[in-house]
Order: sequence, then C-alpha cells, then structure tokens
Amino acid sequence: MAIEHDSFTVYVLLFEEFELLDVFGPVELLSKSSRIDISYFSDQPGLVASSQGIRVESTLRYEEVDDPDVLLVPGGSGTRSLVNDHQFLERLARIGAKSRIVTSVCTGSALLAASGLLEGYRATSNKAAFSWARTHGDKVTWAPRARWVHDRNRWTSSGIAAGIDMTCALMRELLGDEPAEAAARLVEYEPHRDSTWDPFAEPYGLP
Amino acid sequence: MAIEHDSFTVYVLLFEEFELLDVFGPVELLSKSSRIDISYFSDQPGLVASSQGIRVESTLRYEEVDDPDVLLVPGGSGTRSLVNDHQFLERLARIGAKSRIVTSVCTGSALLAASGLLEGYRATSNKAAFSWARTHGDKVTWAPRARWVHDRNRWTSSGIAAGIDMTCALMRELLGDEPAEAAARLVEYEPHRDSTWDPFAEPYGLP
Repeated sequence: MAIEHDSFTVYVLLFEEFELLDVFGPVELLSKSSRIDISYFSDQPGLVASSQGIRVESTLRYEEVDDPDVLLVPGGSGTRSLVNDHQFLERLARIGAKSRIVTSVCTGSALLAASGLLEGYRATSNKAAFSWARTHGDKVTWAPRARWVHDRNRWTSSGIAAGIDMTCALMRELLGDEPAEAAARLVEYEPHRDSTWDPFAEPYGLP
Repeated sequence: MAIEHDSFTVYVLLFEEFELLDVFGPVELLSKSSRIDISYFSDQPGLVASSQGIRVESTLRYEEVDDPDVLLVPGGSGTRSLVNDHQFLERLARIGAKSRIVTSVCTGSALLAASGLLEGYRATSNKAAFSWARTHGDKVTWAPRARWVHDRNRWTSSGIAAGIDMTCALMRELLGDEPAEAAARLVEYEPHRDSTWDPFAEPYGLP
C-alpha cells in the first residue's frame, strides 16, 4: 500500500462536542508528512464546538467530501446523541462506503458501529465508555483490551490518546516505516507499537 | 500548592501558526479536571490559523486576561517572526509578569526567552529547533536533554508531545497526584514521569 500512492487524502469528521485530542493528536502526526492532505467536514461549514469548549473551523459539507483515502471519525460527548440520529448515520455510512480506509478514535467507533460500518469487523473503543459503545452494531466483535484494532480496512482505537498510537501504525502502513518514524520524531512522541498494549482496560473493569 | 486553590485559571496564548498539539495536548488533559478553567487569548478575538492550517477561535484579547494562575505559550512556525515583534514581546512580558506560573511547549520557550521571562531560569525547547531557540534571552540556562524543565514558577517543555508529559507533572503539583492520574487515565495516556527522559536529544545531535 505504501507504494501505490504518492499522496493520501484524510477527511476528518467534526460534530458538536467532538473530543479535541481525538482529532488533533492524529492530525498533528499526519501533518508532518507532506504526502498527506487533511480536510475537515461537518453538517455545515463553520465553527464546530469541541467537548472542551473551544470552537474550530470546518470548511466542507458532507456533499463536498471526495472519495477519501482515509476517513477519521473522532469521539466525544456529541456521540451520545448522534448514535440515534438516523440522518447523520446514513450520511456517515455513505462516506464510509466510499473511503479506502475507515478509522475512528475513542467513541467514534460507536458512530461507525451504529452506522453499520463495523458489521463483520473487530473493533475497540474508549475504555470508560466501552460498555456503552459495544451496544452499537449487530455483528461487531468488540475487543475490550486493545490499544487499537486493525481489521482489513477498518482501524479503531481505544480512548483519546490511543488515537496517536493508531495513527503512527497507520502511517507505517501508508507511507512506510521510516517516514512514519520521522513524523513521530518531529512530534517528539515515542509511540506504542504493540496494538495489544492496553493498561486502561483493567482500571475500568474490562476483561 | 495543591491546597491553597479550589480552582485554577489557565490562559492559552494563540497566534498565527501556533502548533496544534502544543495547545490541545495540554488542554485535553487539563479539561479533565473540573477545577481548571481554560481561556484563549490573542491579538484580537476571532479565528487563528494553526501551523497545520485549521483555524480555531480565540475569545479574549490581551487586555482581557486577568491574572492567570497558569499562562500557556505554545510553539509553532509563527514563533519565527514573533521573536522579533517588540510590541508582541512587551505584551507577553506583561502577562507573564502577572501569572503565578508561566509555561511553554516546544518553541514557545523562544518567545518566553525573547520577552525576558526566562532570565535567570533553566529552560528547554523543541529538539529540532533547539539551536535556534537557545539564541534567545541573555541569561537563560538552556537544557538540551530534558522532557521538560521546572524551575521555580517556570515550566518549559521539549517539542510538541512533551507538553502532555509536562502538563501531567504540573497537574500533580496543582491538584495532587490522584486527580492528575485520574485525568491521564481518562485520556488513556501513560505519562513519562521523569523530566530527564529525553530520547530525542540524540537524533538531533544534542549533548
């Protein structure tokens, strides 16, 4: 996969009450490669409030999203209502269906599951919200103990900071080892490379 | 220090081409404590473009910043011109002087140094930009090998992701160990607790 493409498009979904680091951890790393182009889309262009309050600017609507190489879906408290928003879930399913790779951070996997995009896949989610996240989707195999899960073209990470480690692994796959390591070095981040490393399952009582 | 205050105000400086994770790594962790109130200020309220392109909303001007418990100064490519902007440096010096604790992430320490806020202090900075950062300030003792440096009420971190570790340490000091660990657990982040841990000095040829 590292060979086929010169560059990759990443489309980041933004919604009211998205979790800041779910987006900007991955984006920070991805931005260190000149071969990755990042865009943000939402219900309508304009300012979108994070779970942490600060608002950030989305520039595209759903209809303007080309076929993404990578779709990135964050979590955040906004997911609690969106899992019941059928119009939202249908639009997410459509964009996911035309994405080469579908990724989520934290409770973003609850959105993917509710939209049907994880049917038949293994996935993980935020540990504090795991028992809620896993109620979504019919045929999702939920992994309670994982930093991230990579199953074919679906990548789902555990909570918040886990998205940074998943993104390092994704970049190794897309760009090759050395460009991915160079990005992590610029960010001065030493990634966890073992997707099964997960010290956060136990504190939240997960098996 | 953990005892005196029920709550703490954190003021985050935003400027054109600030580095995203320098701000939102620390903010993500800080936001997990209900005892911390975060505000953003800049030259003028409105949208401020990050080094990564996406714009975020600043709501306060310099004159509206009350005496901060914590001032947070990020790095980013915008620092390259700001170190020569005397009006900016004077305003930063004034706000720093009335802050209980002055912190920076990455090349934010070049701004602090250029404004005089690190005179007589030990400090560190981004490793890729270290040789540039250390040219600022007259009597700053620059530490090339450090995840972060805490000298009295000045906290400066190494590049980008190092700000997250520094913030964990700062939260332990402000709030106590358990609230700080609880915040890191919610973020699913295992912080580096040793401020001298720094595997990034060597790849950049620093002693």
